[in-house]
Amino acid sequence: MLTVKTPEEALTLLESSFPPRPEGEAVPLSAARGRVLCEAVMASEFVPGFDRSTVDGYAVRSADTFGCSEAIPAILTVQGEIAMGEGAGGALGPGCCAAVPTGGAIPEGADAAVMVEYTEDYGDGTVGICKSAAPGSNLIFKGDDVKPGQVVLEAGRRLGAQDIGALAAMGVGTVSVCRRPVVGILSTGDELVPVDTIPGPGQVRDVNSAMLSALVEEAGTEAVSLGILKDDEDLLGRTLDEALTRCDVILISGGSSVGMKDATCRVIESRGTVLLHGLAMKPGKPTILGDVEGRPVFGLPGHPAAAFFVARLLVRPLLLRLTGQSLRGYTVPAVLTEAVSANHGRAQYMGVFLFEEDGVRYAKPIRGKSGLITALAGSDGCFCIHRDCEGLPAGTTVQVWPYGVE
Amino acid sequence: MLTVKTPEEALTLLESSFPPRPEGEAVPLSAARGRVLCEAVMASEFVPGFDRSTVDGYAVRSADTFGCSEAIPAILTVQGEIAMGEGAGGALGPGCCAAVPTGGAIPEGADAAVMVEYTEDYGDGTVGICKSAAPGSNLIFKGDDVKPGQVVLEAGRRLGAQDIGALAAMGVGTVSVCRRPVVGILSTGDELVPVDTIPGPGQVRDVNSAMLSALVEEAGTEAVSLGILKDDEDLLGRTLDEALTRCDVILISGGSSVGMKDATCRVIESRGTVLLHGLAMKPGKPTILGDVEGRPVFGLPGHPAAAFFVARLLVRPLLLRLTGQSLRGYTVPAVLTEAVSANHGRAQYMGVFLFEEDGVRYAKPIRGKSGLITALAGSDGCFCIHRDCEGLPAGTTVQVWPYGVE
Repeated sequence: MLTVKTPEEALTLLESSFPPRPEGEAVPLSAARGRVLCEAVMASEFVPGFDRSTVDGYAVRSADTFGCSEAIPAILTVQGEIAMGEGAGGALGPGCCAAVPTGGAIPEGADAAVMVEYTEDYGDGTVGICKSAAPGSNLIFKGDDVKPGQVVLEAGRRLGAQDIGALAAMGVGTVSVCRRPVVGILSTGDELVPVDTIPGPGQVRDVNSAMLSALVEEAGTEAVSLGILKDDEDLLGRTLDEALTRCDVILISGGSSVGMKDATCRVIESRGTVLLHGLAMKPGKPTILGDVEGRPVFGLPGHPAAAFFVARLLVRPLLLRLTGQSLRGYTVPAVLTEAVSANHGRAQYMGVFLFEEDGVRYAKPIRGKSGLITALAGSDGCFCIHRDCEGLPAGTTVQVWPYGVE
Repeated sequence: MLTVKTPEEALTLLESSFPPRPEGEAVPLSAARGRVLCEAVMASEFVPGFDRSTVDGYAVRSADTFGCSEAIPAILTVQGEIAMGEGAGGALGPGCCAAVPTGGAIPEGADAAVMVEYTEDYGDGTVGICKSAAPGSNLIFKGDDVKPGQVVLEAGRRLGAQDIGALAAMGVGTVSVCRRPVVGILSTGDELVPVDTIPGPGQVRDVNSAMLSALVEEAGTEAVSLGILKDDEDLLGRTLDEALTRCDVILISGGSSVGMKDATCRVIESRGTVLLHGLAMKPGKPTILGDVEGRPVFGLPGHPAAAFFVARLLVRPLLLRLTGQSLRGYTVPAVLTEAVSANHGRAQYMGVFLFEEDGVRYAKPIRGKSGLITALAGSDGCFCIHRDCEGLPAGTTVQVWPYGVE
């Protein structure tokens, strides 16, 4: 009945059990930052929409400039001046040129621009061109950047400033992004009191509700607090039933009281399937994953540091995927400042502080027995000691997952 | 008068000219994620607040268990059962033990806990302890994690889920965070039309307002759109004056029309000091930085890709520092998929797509002449080709700054 899995197996299980089913919603471009594209964005226009000069100077017919030099400039008649934000006017006649600013439109007939530095204004309506221009030089042509039908951003892209800029250039004022999954967060335990309460004898504050809400929001999903429950299996069941009507994912943490250890498991079993019961990682062993009506229900450890690591490792990738997001996560190499030991036959996750000295990035492991706060506060990332590894000496380069702050 | 600087010089200049002056504001813990601590957070309580068992079992006086074994268990009288969330009751008498759950309070007199696996309940009010317990074993003592007066989080910390958890554990329901600087964003240019407008002849959409707003928000600051201005120096001056009454930083982009090139410079000069005029980087040369009444005023290039790189490189670090944030930014090593050339005597920044194959991270450089969209859309980060470098062959490992999405 105990279905203990390694973190890798758990991730695979999550992926196969809960495929993304993104639903689109339309948001204005100004609210699209950080959201995930529900469908690919295709250009419907040419960008740029007209041939433009990339220099301040003169639009010319390149053939008129062939063979010219500083000694023997090509003398061209100035046909006019093109202003920013206006059309280029009539076609450029042979032997003519038109003054054009950077970004200005190029008249029909012109096929190059000459930088003003290589010209001389004779003040009589003509200019001398002192450098020959190859066809196409100093121009960007209509559609050079993007043409209609071209896919510019793929579905699943989480939109950063650079993408918002691209959408603005294409005139996309409304964006179809994936609906944010709603994640219900429930803390259980007779010992728990709200954060703003002074704990009485034997009581501790509910850390997980606040921490998991923040973690869920960092993943771009919506957190709904379902409160603190006393250890009561019926109550847990009823609360879960209610939560399933409005949440896409449920995180239950706690349940460490004697007799309640398996309550989350039983509650899930009576409504769906327990997929995982026990995780071969440290911290995080007492982790449960269930499938109720197609929705993932996690039973996370009550210990905040353990709940944090399991949520980073399993819940976060699931949430990113459910938002429709293509996964992306970087590890950064860092040098261990001190030796770490491990000997559990379980993958061991350890938080670190990251800092740089003389251009070298160091990871200082966070120690402390069962620390609540010290295992979390100010930490910058974590790394994994493989289950077959008994420890790593100081100076080892490890791959750290920076938590980032999103 | 032209004070061209390298990117490094510009960063140093920004740092010395605009020191952070964080102002605190109180926000509830639930709204503190992503914000920056204005002052260090010190513990005012012991965490945990009482001695706790880390196992399910029995609280004992360790001396009562010395010398016991499976063959000769120590027989102890069960004095009671400690429930989660309640006090431990009276002191533990000699020869006695108390049932305790993981996380439960340990009664006075007890100095160890024994796992239930190493005990035998005789059913007559006594249990046999089959393994001797060293003093302190399986306990976490009051204040083991944090003691009053201990600094748990430093000022300047941008709060992630792990920090929110630590604050919750300490009962910090209200957090003093730095006020978000307000950044005014102004696009100038006769050719610019709003994003939702179909450009007429010679017109282009205002990309920078949307892109820079997103970039400013990613840095945890507040963006205020000051709209699109026609190229008119007086109007620019009046708009700047008005913006200075309500913005901490001003970003002006554009001004590429002939005659307007130096308007931003003149407007700054008539009100303050131009600190930088020209940046030795590509793209991004036509960059201006001024100090008006102690506030940074940037003149950014009108070209969106250039404006983006300069904003990433100069504006973002400034904004992070002005929010009170300790700087943090990771580069990730990646292998170039193709050769890149550079030969400008200027630091050259190039956007990349990042992807992984067989465990190797690759950076695919983004090319294209003066691309608006293609230089930005979907890009994952950028790297710098040093000004003394003429190019890099395919296969070179470069250090990429991932943009992240915050």
